Amino acid sequence: MCLISAAVSDKCCTMDVFEKRAAVFMETTKRFPRKIWKLGRDDPRRAIHSIKVGVSLTLVSLLYLLNPLFKGVGENVIWAVMTVVVVLEFTAGATLCKGLNRGLGTLFAGSLAFLFKFIATDSGKVFCAVFIGASVFLIGKRLSQFCTYLRFFPYVKKNYDYGVVIFLLTFNLITISSYRVDDVLKLARERLYTMAIGSGVCILMSLFIFPIWSGEDLHNFSVSKIEGLAKSIAACVDEYFSDGEPDAGKDKSIEDPIYENYKAVLDSKSTDETLALHASWEPRHSWHCNPFPWQQYVKLGGVLRHFGYTVVALHGSLQTEIQVLAVFSVLFALAYNYPCTRLATEVSKALMELADSIRNRRQCSPEILSDHLHQALQDLDTALKSQPRLFLGPNGPNNTANMLALVAETTRSKPEKHLSSVKTESSALFEWRSKRTSKQSMEAEGRLLRPTLSKLAITSLEFSEALPFAAFAALLVEAVAKLDLVIEEVEALGRIACFKDFEIGDDVKAETSPGPSESVPNLVRGPPQFLGKKALYRNSVS
Amino acid sequence: MCLISAAVSDKCCTMDVFEKRAAVFMETTKRFPRKIWKLGRDDPRRAIHSIKVGVSLTLVSLLYLLNPLFKGVGENVIWAVMTVVVVLEFTAGATLCKGLNRGLGTLFAGSLAFLFKFIATDSGKVFCAVFIGASVFLIGKRLSQFCTYLRFFPYVKKNYDYGVVIFLLTFNLITISSYRVDDVLKLARERLYTMAIGSGVCILMSLFIFPIWSGEDLHNFSVSKIEGLAKSIAACVDEYFSDGEPDAGKDKSIEDPIYENYKAVLDSKSTDETLALHASWEPRHSWHCNPFPWQQYVKLGGVLRHFGYTVVALHGSLQTEIQVLAVFSVLFALAYNYPCTRLATEVSKALMELADSIRNRRQCSPEILSDHLHQALQDLDTALKSQPRLFLGPNGPNNTANMLALVAETTRSKPEKHLSSVKTESSALFEWRSKRTSKQSMEAEGRLLRPTLSKLAITSLEFSEALPFAAFAALLVEAVAKLDLVIEEVEALGRIACFKDFEIGDDVKAETSPGPSESVPNLVRGPPQFLGKKALYRNSVS
Repeated sequence: MCLISAAVSDKCCTMDVFEKRAAVFMETTKRFPRKIWKLGRDDPRRAIHSIKVGVSLTLVSLLYLLNPLFKGVGENVIWAVMTVVVVLEFTAGATLCKGLNRGLGTLFAGSLAFLFKFIATDSGKVFCAVFIGASVFLIGKRLSQFCTYLRFFPYVKKNYDYGVVIFLLTFNLITISSYRVDDVLKLARERLYTMAIGSGVCILMSLFIFPIWSGEDLHNFSVSKIEGLAKSIAACVDEYFSDGEPDAGKDKSIEDPIYENYKAVLDSKSTDETLALHASWEPRHSWHCNPFPWQQYVKLGGVLRHFGYTVVALHGSLQTEIQVLAVFSVLFALAYNYPCTRLATEVSKALMELADSIRNRRQCSPEILSDHLHQALQDLDTALKSQPRLFLGPNGPNNTANMLALVAETTRSKPEKHLSSVKTESSALFEWRSKRTSKQSMEAEGRLLRPTLSKLAITSLEFSEALPFAAFAALLVEAVAKLDLVIEEVEALGRIACFKDFEIGDDVKAETSPGPSESVPNLVRGPPQFLGKKALYRNSVS
Repeated sequence: MCLISAAVSDKCCTMDVFEKRAAVFMETTKRFPRKIWKLGRDDPRRAIHSIKVGVSLTLVSLLYLLNPLFKGVGENVIWAVMTVVVVLEFTAGATLCKGLNRGLGTLFAGSLAFLFKFIATDSGKVFCAVFIGASVFLIGKRLSQFCTYLRFFPYVKKNYDYGVVIFLLTFNLITISSYRVDDVLKLARERLYTMAIGSGVCILMSLFIFPIWSGEDLHNFSVSKIEGLAKSIAACVDEYFSDGEPDAGKDKSIEDPIYENYKAVLDSKSTDETLALHASWEPRHSWHCNPFPWQQYVKLGGVLRHFGYTVVALHGSLQTEIQVLAVFSVLFALAYNYPCTRLATEVSKALMELADSIRNRRQCSPEILSDHLHQALQDLDTALKSQPRLFLGPNGPNNTANMLALVAETTRSKPEKHLSSVKTESSALFEWRSKRTSKQSMEAEGRLLRPTLSKLAITSLEFSEALPFAAFAALLVEAVAKLDLVIEEVEALGRIACFKDFEIGDDVKAETSPGPSESVPNLVRGPPQFLGKKALYRNSVS
């Protein structure tokens, strides 16, 4: 009875699993057309490229299907089809790069193979077989090995990898077939013709019919990267002085809009280099620049990545593990908020202007580093210098008592978040040690407990009240310094790519930043109007 | 006469250029064998792979050259050669990935093409041509377009890109040839055979003869990344308290050994993902783990990249544009040096232990977060709290006078470096403004002058004496927090990959760090013995 019920429940389980999987499959299938539609809507050039491939294949197939054309090229038409399938890439640059590699590889390999054939041509059949066998075995093998080895050179790998593969392939094919086929020269000629036809179709399709340029992609990618950085640096500062609690942990960074904005910059190296490589093969395709300054875009990409690392660090100080005691935050918010926010706004504005200038292919505004930026830097300076007691540690007994009361209050309202910051140093150390002792006795559990230790060690220390703020301010100043490098590269790009001159009125953005005269916040008057809710809340608590 | 001499000098010039180019060419040629030798010495597996390709091609060529074998497969032996050239990749995983893609693509395409053929088989020659023409035009075109479109899906692009290309190719080839060749089934069978032979040779070579595993590469890459981070974090702190002047500018970061160490981590995303993708295709190749936990390695890589961004920020504070006034540096060096250096040493040691544990495939030591790390954190806390006046701005008149004298002295000894820090705020602002005015009048030159403005604005402000130090300390603490995430992922890796248990004696590194009892630096006694020369120099100046 028991067995039967077990079997029944087992079957039920299996059915459940099956049903669930079926549901998932149905869901995926249902979503598939929507996904396909989204893919094309996101970038309609994808659909255009697909149609181009279909048309090219049809054109090439006609060679085979129509009798008069077939007599001209014979069965070797498969090489044309192969060329189209393999060579026709998304962008014109990639197609040209692959096509030229294929052409050169074939040509070199063909010449070399015919040299072999020429040497062997006067000998008899048997000797020929022996000779070709020997050549395939010895020279061919050595050559193949050498070519394969060559592919490990980064320069060859980057630029001519496909050409070397094609060389290897063609050389081996011709050397081998030359033994069985009598008129190998005719065969080779026909193959070359068909390949040329295939390549011609590819070039026609990629260069003249709705061409897609790698250079354009690289250009737009640079613009979107700069805009992403501008958005995330502004968002970082907004969040720092906003209502939400800074929530530690890495999970957040994956969903975070700030992270989404700078993510593309961090991992942009391979994309940049691929696009630049393909762009370097593209002929002049606009009146803006000749030749296309792809190296400068790569350099700009490198500088942007380094700017991005500063933004990551800035973002990191939002998610810091160090618990910030509220009383210091209030003082800091008062002293810092205004210049910090303004500095970030100015940096963000400058980046936006850079992105705008690249997008419209014009030189960037000579006023890109405005008075406001300089003023914001000076205000930050003033604020820091006028608030030295912000940096004082909690040494006085009153101070500590105040803080503990404050912390206790905060703990009552949000018990799960601030619990660890209540612990005094010695109690935390004691707890840490006792945990460690118990861990050493039971190793397996200990390994699971341990990761929180360092976090505990950090949160229980009170040393860091001033640190995160100072780090935040220093990183902001660092961002200004790196902004300079970005501007330098963008200006160099403008010169090299012959962007049109800047004219007054090109930067249509409204100058919303307050003037220098009213820009120093009056710390006595209380928080300015745009001070975040968190700071206000903390102000009321203190 | 003048014309002749001009022509002669022109010829001389041309000859010079020619000679120079010839010299460069000769130099490159001379260096080429050394480069080739270095390529193989760096990784001998490259030479092995080249030999394997040569041997495989020879084996496949035998099919064609030996008569009995040739009769079996016919001319289609070229497909075997093509398979070997295209499929045999450096690592076993990559070969399997490509081979399987090729096999599946061919099989699907073949089946579909035969379905077409079956439908058309009873019709006459003319009708057949029409039918096939129609099918190629309509269904083939649609299918090609659809497949090309499919390749834009990131998932398809990542895993099955090559398979889709082969599907496209095979489908088009078979559909087209089926019109001219009568026994297309025989043709397809022979092609499939030869492809199977080619694939067999590839699998034999990649799996059984000196196999090169992507999984191993991924494993070793992870180890080297962690070691690089450990080295660079230690080097950062060493340089911060060392003799050399912190030299601003991006050029340095390219040559920098610190940069060299963490560079690989920053741009590791695509390498990680490619290696993991290939590793996911590899069969069990060692007793350590089954299946190979490639996802965990990718996760670890992500956490390491985020740790790397903190190291970049730490490195950035070495190269900061903000001029640090020496008097603060001395006080800070005294207060900071000991715990900072020790904290960095502990973090570096923990990373080295992690790298060591992964390398030896054992669980990491449960004592990885030692007392010393906690002690160093607390010492940093103590040092910061006991030195609140370090954060005081230069408000007092004495303070400013002292500083100016100090700066003047520094300027005399190194006039080109500290010149900008002598400028008072108002004079700098004035200079900045005058430059800006002149720039607006002559636009072209202005553009060249401008990039230095923001730098000037930063260096002329004195606000930042405490900032870089605070940022440095905060980033170090941030690094400890991120170390936690790294340890978490390494421990998860240890569990998933069934690493052997940790045994006492596995961590053979000498515990060179001072014990907790003697670890708090006595600030009254003067600088500890390992205080950098720069700090000593500054101490003597003050």
